[in-house]
Amino acid sequence: MQRAAALLRRGCGPRTPGPWGRNQSSAAAEASAVLNVRPERSRRERILTLESMNPQVKAVEYAVRGPIVLKAGEIELELQRGIKKPFTEVIRANIGDAQAMGQQPITFLRQVMALCTYPNLLDSPSFPEDAKKRARRILQACGGNSLGSYSASQGVNCIREDVAAYITRRDGGVPADPDNIYLTTGASDGISTILKILVSGGGKSRTGVLIPIPQYPLYSAVISELDAIQVNYYLDEENCWALNVNELRRAVKEAKDHCDPKVLCIINPGNPTGQVQSRKCIEDVIHFAWEEKLFLLADEVYQDNVYSPDCRFHSFKKVLYEMGPEYSSNVELASFHSTSKGYMGECGYRGGYMEVINLHPEIKGQLVKLLSVRLCPPVSGQAAMDIVVNPPVPGEESFEQFSREKESVLGNLAKKAKLTEDLFNQVPGIHCNPLQGAMYAFPRIFLPAKAVEAAQAHQMAPDMFYCMKLLEETGICVVPGSGFGQREGTYHFRFCSGTFPVRAPPEKVVI
Amino acid sequence: MQRAAALLRRGCGPRTPGPWGRNQSSAAAEASAVLNVRPERSRRERILTLESMNPQVKAVEYAVRGPIVLKAGEIELELQRGIKKPFTEVIRANIGDAQAMGQQPITFLRQVMALCTYPNLLDSPSFPEDAKKRARRILQACGGNSLGSYSASQGVNCIREDVAAYITRRDGGVPADPDNIYLTTGASDGISTILKILVSGGGKSRTGVLIPIPQYPLYSAVISELDAIQVNYYLDEENCWALNVNELRRAVKEAKDHCDPKVLCIINPGNPTGQVQSRKCIEDVIHFAWEEKLFLLADEVYQDNVYSPDCRFHSFKKVLYEMGPEYSSNVELASFHSTSKGYMGECGYRGGYMEVINLHPEIKGQLVKLLSVRLCPPVSGQAAMDIVVNPPVPGEESFEQFSREKESVLGNLAKKAKLTEDLFNQVPGIHCNPLQGAMYAFPRIFLPAKAVEAAQAHQMAPDMFYCMKLLEETGICVVPGSGFGQREGTYHFRFCSGTFPVRAPPEKVVI
Repeated sequence: MQRAAALLRRGCGPRTPGPWGRNQSSAAAEASAVLNVRPERSRRERILTLESMNPQVKAVEYAVRGPIVLKAGEIELELQRGIKKPFTEVIRANIGDAQAMGQQPITFLRQVMALCTYPNLLDSPSFPEDAKKRARRILQACGGNSLGSYSASQGVNCIREDVAAYITRRDGGVPADPDNIYLTTGASDGISTILKILVSGGGKSRTGVLIPIPQYPLYSAVISELDAIQVNYYLDEENCWALNVNELRRAVKEAKDHCDPKVLCIINPGNPTGQVQSRKCIEDVIHFAWEEKLFLLADEVYQDNVYSPDCRFHSFKKVLYEMGPEYSSNVELASFHSTSKGYMGECGYRGGYMEVINLHPEIKGQLVKLLSVRLCPPVSGQAAMDIVVNPPVPGEESFEQFSREKESVLGNLAKKAKLTEDLFNQVPGIHCNPLQGAMYAFPRIFLPAKAVEAAQAHQMAPDMFYCMKLLEETGICVVPGSGFGQREGTYHFRFCSGTFPVRAPPEKVVI
Repeated sequence: MQRAAALLRRGCGPRTPGPWGRNQSSAAAEASAVLNVRPERSRRERILTLESMNPQVKAVEYAVRGPIVLKAGEIELELQRGIKKPFTEVIRANIGDAQAMGQQPITFLRQVMALCTYPNLLDSPSFPEDAKKRARRILQACGGNSLGSYSASQGVNCIREDVAAYITRRDGGVPADPDNIYLTTGASDGISTILKILVSGGGKSRTGVLIPIPQYPLYSAVISELDAIQVNYYLDEENCWALNVNELRRAVKEAKDHCDPKVLCIINPGNPTGQVQSRKCIEDVIHFAWEEKLFLLADEVYQDNVYSPDCRFHSFKKVLYEMGPEYSSNVELASFHSTSKGYMGECGYRGGYMEVINLHPEIKGQLVKLLSVRLCPPVSGQAAMDIVVNPPVPGEESFEQFSREKESVLGNLAKKAKLTEDLFNQVPGIHCNPLQGAMYAFPRIFLPAKAVEAAQAHQMAPDMFYCMKLLEETGICVVPGSGFGQREGTYHFRFCSGTFPVRAPPEKVVI
């Protein structure tokens, strides 16, 4: 572990303390709110207790911001108080939060957002004309020409049109209908909304939701909240985390004994596993969904994050259409995108969209009704989404700067992915699959029997114990594999390579 | 009805077509998505249908954006296509969306937001220093000094501190703890999160949630989604929609036969009813909650919207503390605020907060965990909330302009409330209680027996029938009382007085 930490720390280089100092205090406050469980002082019993609360909420686990992250906040507080540690700062590799780790926002995106926020700037000569043009277009589509008005529940009309045009371009001309686009509060909101509408039945007919293992824990959390049945299918670690349809078949077959498997979730490029699915594999999955009558959820938020030269992103929608009308007019598919990842990393704006095709027309009405209860997604996030799908084009004033910034971010992410993979594979006891895309590594750790025993003595999962030690001894915060799911008896952690802070060009880092 | 419409239209005056044209098309698209239920073309049955979907979602109703609003969208489409109507535009009085109706954003708020969005502007001489100071403070508390980073799940630290300081000022020194503040995606998000954690049990021990009738339909929608038991208590229309504790007592007593009443929701100032609760009444309600062991939810998003000179806003928190330690250290209370209402009307940013006091420490952890699944509320909305709770103070450069703008908006809202009340009370067959606060009138309509029969012949609730006719014949879009709940045999509609577009000063409108 010490060797891994040393290598990771050497790869990291110094960073400015400013933003970190503040970020630390924010995380630390969260930690203190949760961990400092003080004894009850008052006389009366509380109405809301662990015993009386919603048991489905109690069952929710969310490791990405779970106990280890709270511990990281505590350690940051201790560092602030001057307590000596073998390190001076915590490195938060637990979450894909690019801008928190120093990635600069795309200038054009922020220019358009500032113009929309404060339209007086439309008269300012310091903003480029193409940014102004986009801001005017967005504002004209908002009630009262203002980001401060509610939008339609499904999202601002012209932004949904831009999303549809983007999808059509991305998919080489496969048509997309703005009516099928729903703007959301990040991708998480879309995923949980669609799952909410899908879950029904009791006992053996309760809805089963197939999710990959390892998975992104939003899925297990929402399944738990909705009291649906989680059906695991295992990705093939020996085969670079590939999805094997035989494994899907096994999972569905076994699930049918105790639930009604109705939904199949895919994350491509993979989170936390970083693989990129082949076109053939996607075709197999779609055929399987068609055969087994499964509603497909394609989490494609890392569609811009493909690094391996041997891999390409294929959207489920495009493959579905290429498979012919039997599939393209029958398979129900929701796919998700976000402003948070890709090259923009605008997590804080909570922008996203979903495209839902072959939805029963009556269900469209139900979906809009459900969305309308929370009125609308943040309009500023919708505007951010618009820039992502409608960026500057050749001939426009901002095109060159935009392209330069975009390529620089994506180039850095690719370098960091390679660096991460290489570093991990130099450490005895760690094996890391090739990082083809997304922003994460999910290396396997081979723990000695004594470490497993020590963990058990502490009533901790062995990988949680490892990650806790890694954090306490080196200040590096990663999330244990048990928070994402893994094959029994194997141990992993998720490390966000995308936020790996590199100062020197990676090729100059001598291991 | 014709008389009512003529009076309302006379009060309205002309408006610029620009934003409306766009807003219309957006609403129209929503209408066409939902209402144009085309026959199924494809061969296979859908997986997700009205029969197979989540029955709790199917049971959700949300009238504020329900069928009448979809019909309004259809009519707007028809007007755009040149179809002749007795009116040239639809007046959307169905929702409190101030900026969509022409209310201008508060300059200072948007200046700070623009500076946070595009920090290059911090060097611009066209922005006041106090706005820059606030923007710097917010950015320093964000990861990577950027609105594009995720915040802590509970919200940005310094913004929660500002909220706590605001509450302390508002409540005359009653202390507020930043640890008890949770920033949310509008108030709706906070309300549904707290309800989600509160609901448990099966059969007769299923959680009962007391809500006022008439209510804001978010409550009934969330209760339905969570499969909780809605327990109605009726506001006293004859007594200006006052809350009577005897009625609460009746409701709880009857509810105990079939559920476990555990939560009491209050909306003050009232939505849709526009009343402001007296201090005495709040004290009675708190005592009742203490006595009956009810978790209190105080929806106080209209706390800045009190118009009647005889009324004042009293927060539940303040009254709770003034009642002494037996209450202040025992009664569990969540109160909600938002950027959407008040004088700022920033609905689109989806900013809000909740303060939760006397929460069991273990539940705090559960709440943070639940919030962390959706990562964080939009950081731009959090920043907007910060300006609302931390506005310019005397001596600061922007104070004068800010105060002028704030007073102008609140003054206009007060005038519109009075105008609305007076207009309705001139119409035979309509009775409207005094509008003491919030943004709505909920007048009672006395329908002739023949109108009720005609409605029944159309299989419509009588007030839905009335509102549909009002919309079709006059273009005025209001929401039928049945969407909010009302005493059996009485009929009402909700009219948003706050968006009543007045051109001439109201005192010059000759009725």
